[in-house]
Amino acid sequence: MSQKLIFSGVSRRTLLSALAVLPAFSGPLLPVLARAQTAASGGPLPSWNDGPSKQAIIDFVRATTDQGSPKFVPPEERIATFDQDGTLWVEHPIYSQVVYCLDRVSALVERKPELRKIEPFKTVLSGNREAVAKLSLHDLEAILVATLTGMPVDTFAAEAAKWLATAKHPRWNRLYTELVYQPMLEVLQFLRDNGYKTYIVTGGGQDFVRDYSQRVYGIPPEQVVGTMGGTKFGYDKNGKPFLTKEPKLLLNDDKAGKPEGIHLMIGRRPRAAFGNSDGDREMLEYTGSGDGARLMMLVLHDDAQREYAYGPARGLPDTKIGAFSQALDAEAKKNGWTVISMKSDWKRIFVFD
Amino acid sequence: MSQKLIFSGVSRRTLLSALAVLPAFSGPLLPVLARAQTAASGGPLPSWNDGPSKQAIIDFVRATTDQGSPKFVPPEERIATFDQDGTLWVEHPIYSQVVYCLDRVSALVERKPELRKIEPFKTVLSGNREAVAKLSLHDLEAILVATLTGMPVDTFAAEAAKWLATAKHPRWNRLYTELVYQPMLEVLQFLRDNGYKTYIVTGGGQDFVRDYSQRVYGIPPEQVVGTMGGTKFGYDKNGKPFLTKEPKLLLNDDKAGKPEGIHLMIGRRPRAAFGNSDGDREMLEYTGSGDGARLMMLVLHDDAQREYAYGPARGLPDTKIGAFSQALDAEAKKNGWTVISMKSDWKRIFVFD
Repeated sequence: MSQKLIFSGVSRRTLLSALAVLPAFSGPLLPVLARAQTAASGGPLPSWNDGPSKQAIIDFVRATTDQGSPKFVPPEERIATFDQDGTLWVEHPIYSQVVYCLDRVSALVERKPELRKIEPFKTVLSGNREAVAKLSLHDLEAILVATLTGMPVDTFAAEAAKWLATAKHPRWNRLYTELVYQPMLEVLQFLRDNGYKTYIVTGGGQDFVRDYSQRVYGIPPEQVVGTMGGTKFGYDKNGKPFLTKEPKLLLNDDKAGKPEGIHLMIGRRPRAAFGNSDGDREMLEYTGSGDGARLMMLVLHDDAQREYAYGPARGLPDTKIGAFSQALDAEAKKNGWTVISMKSDWKRIFVFD
Repeated sequence: MSQKLIFSGVSRRTLLSALAVLPAFSGPLLPVLARAQTAASGGPLPSWNDGPSKQAIIDFVRATTDQGSPKFVPPEERIATFDQDGTLWVEHPIYSQVVYCLDRVSALVERKPELRKIEPFKTVLSGNREAVAKLSLHDLEAILVATLTGMPVDTFAAEAAKWLATAKHPRWNRLYTELVYQPMLEVLQFLRDNGYKTYIVTGGGQDFVRDYSQRVYGIPPEQVVGTMGGTKFGYDKNGKPFLTKEPKLLLNDDKAGKPEGIHLMIGRRPRAAFGNSDGDREMLEYTGSGDGARLMMLVLHDDAQREYAYGPARGLPDTKIGAFSQALDAEAKKNGWTVISMKSDWKRIFVFD
């Protein structure tokens, strides 16, 4: 039984050294809801600058929804998939869900005091960021398993919702759920307005993302494909049935796992797929290998001023998390995938800008 | 790695002895499409006799869709789940998918001639029904794994579609996809007309049922929850990506696996659930344990003349496949679940009646 829940392709050092830049684990602060503001009057995609990226989206939607077009796609086949971290919301300096897991350790040891003196929980509780950054991948997996599994699914959902309503990103001092990209919310809405079913296809935990996907992205829980763990059906002492989250990995929804997860959960090949990193390569390849009109796009984070800049493609810094490699850039060019420049294609980054 | 794909709770003898009543493996015959005829004018559920079962469905839909009702359910939470075998279509004398697997053995040995002289394939090819009926559960699993996995997902879909277009049920000499219950098609349509998302939740193979769910039931592939196998992403010799069906069981979608599969694939508790056997018990319990209005129904096969009669509840014959036990009948009574009598509640059984 593998316990690798989240971290395929991301090295321990990368992940943990990022912790050093976080000022503290998230504390309770006033909740502010992110609203998925949609296209205002004056045409679709108002937060996009005119250019090839905006045009590619508009051309694709027009061609696939015009009954007279040779590229027309019947409504039931209109499936669009979106990576989350780095494609729909901020993934730096570290994935929000990892911050959640570290934050949850103190609650965990209240339920299971015996863990207080056991590694790696002892180190996390020490608050010593240097020591946390030195934890092994095995240690980190133990933290994920302990904080994401072993409780009823309803308890997990309530705990995650509480955290999401208070925890803030250190750079903007805003809720993580506010740090969604306004231009991408517009793409989601534009596609839905044209009969597309929009799905999230993320390496993040499926149940975690489902907790906020509807209110943040307008995507219902049944349209979230993520890294999937097993559950176990049972009865409480009153005979009431409930499901417990098990430390059993069903599918690691990253890289090759993305098309596998799409087949499992959707059973159709997407018509459009959006990503931002090497973890999305196989999803875009799978999408692009179908017949007829297809749209494949990658968000390039080249805007250190308004968000972050990382590649290592095109000479951008190699920060590992969400890596957009030179090889991916070359494959995009070869296959005709569109690379979105955050810096030049997007007028606004966030809903609150 | 378990290879138990289908058969939890059904004994080998039960399953295989049923083969004896099939006159021959299905031969190629003219395809006739089953059409999901929906409610005609004059109110919903025209193929239902007036009575408590019909009334329970109508009352539930009215209460949950009337904004002024205390039982109102917001549209996004309107999820209804349906078992397939014995609930939406005929499951006797043996599950259609098992017939498919046995039928596929001859095609399998064309691809892999070395299997021709190896058991259990040798026995299946012999055409000796008595010998086939004596195969062990282990042998049967080997047949399922060999015929349902190890090929690209597109190849499997094409092969299954071809079989479904020709194979016929021995009793009615009609395509399996025609042997769907007209009253249940009306329930599906009535629920959808009232904003419910309808899902199949079946112990059958997810990819198999997806092959015909849209045209037979009006249910798209992404709303089929079944027994799930893994797939593996790879590239063909031209570098084109494809998925291969793997002999890896992710979830056995029967009994406790049904609520687990519902959580995995839908992430919400259903508002309504329909089944017909002990394999659906946990799904109905899970559905019924939520707050607010819920509808749980079980089809009782008590009509040997028009379809089949089996229980063993209420003194009906114990045929094992699709068993409706006395314990289930008692639980239905205790929990207020509605038992549908095929004989007295349904005016028509099939679309073609």
